Amino acid sequence: MGRPPRRLLTPDWIADEALRMVDDSGDFTMPGIAARLKVRPSSLYNHISGRGEIIELLRARMMSSVDVEAVKAKSRTWSDVVIGLAREYRRSYAQHPRLIPLFTAHTVQTEVAFNMYNALADAFVSAGFSSADVLHAITAVDSFVLGSALDVAAPKEVWATPANANAAMRSAIAAATPLESRADAAFELGVRALVEGLVVLSRQAAN
Amino acid sequence: MGRPPRRLLTPDWIADEALRMVDDSGDFTMPGIAARLKVRPSSLYNHISGRGEIIELLRARMMSSVDVEAVKAKSRTWSDVVIGLAREYRRSYAQHPRLIPLFTAHTVQTEVAFNMYNALADAFVSAGFSSADVLHAITAVDSFVLGSALDVAAPKEVWATPANANAAMRSAIAAATPLESRADAAFELGVRALVEGLVVLSRQAAN
Repeated sequence: MGRPPRRLLTPDWIADEALRMVDDSGDFTMPGIAARLKVRPSSLYNHISGRGEIIELLRARMMSSVDVEAVKAKSRTWSDVVIGLAREYRRSYAQHPRLIPLFTAHTVQTEVAFNMYNALADAFVSAGFSSADVLHAITAVDSFVLGSALDVAAPKEVWATPANANAAMRSAIAAATPLESRADAAFELGVRALVEGLVVLSRQAAN
Repeated sequence: MGRPPRRLLTPDWIADEALRMVDDSGDFTMPGIAARLKVRPSSLYNHISGRGEIIELLRARMMSSVDVEAVKAKSRTWSDVVIGLAREYRRSYAQHPRLIPLFTAHTVQTEVAFNMYNALADAFVSAGFSSADVLHAITAVDSFVLGSALDVAAPKEVWATPANANAAMRSAIAAATPLESRADAAFELGVRALVEGLVVLSRQAAN
């Protein structure tokens, strides 16, 4: 293995390598990171406690690029806040879609993530949701954003047109715009519909 | 390698092994499958054309368990059809969440998937959506379902309660019910809100 380049090993450098492995193959392992960095696996543990800490470091990176204060500053209503945060959150996560199943399988711990979750919770509280429904509404937005971030990584042709496609589906496929604007348009329709629907349901619950 | 057990090698057996690899590590490779089956990689290509065909075989399995006709039979409105299909689709995909990024990165080709997509397209056409909006509405439902299927695999504690969590977020976390019912409740709220919102937006577009 040679002499470990100990002066270079930092949590961020370890996280960089984990991220490259996830982009390449959908996951990372501690021995895999060690091999790529040409250090002993035990050396990694001098800098990070393990897999969970790396996942949270990567989550913190993705969340840091969501500018919560900027979204709040330009929003007039709680719906604007939710839609604006969802848009930023999707943009950030779409850059590394294969991280998404690792994030959803791990407890959210990094402090910086709570800048966004706090703002979402405030928005739904101000809309009159109960605490349980605040959590469900946040989860619903979260699920929609993560699915939409995966859609950004979709191939140019999302659906082939096999023999089994009916007339309605064929017309819909034929109407598809190029990838980026298709994914963006679907996200914008979906996030407006989701928030609009949450408004309707919260009014019904209040009556 | 020994003598390849050629009599056993079938597309389904290859797909079984790919699925186990995805469940374990988030992805599969042709050499990896070959090693696990103790055959030469070249032997696999006598049965399947490659990675893409395996992904579509696995998609076909997941989609086969969505009973489109049963959902249509018990639905009174187009909203019922969409919500019922979303519910079945999530149930199926939640069993193997790590397949999801592989599916979203690959063109949908398997005929059986179009049983569901055709029914969704018919539902949105009957709701008065344009062809482009039919595609965006289907994509929005798809994204929400896939994100929600990932949430089924979330840890018991989705959010820790770090110092940075505000009062609204702390109350929401404290109100969380146990995992399965939490994820189900979030999905049910979200899918009803999404479809309700699509109704509102389609009425606005029609006026």
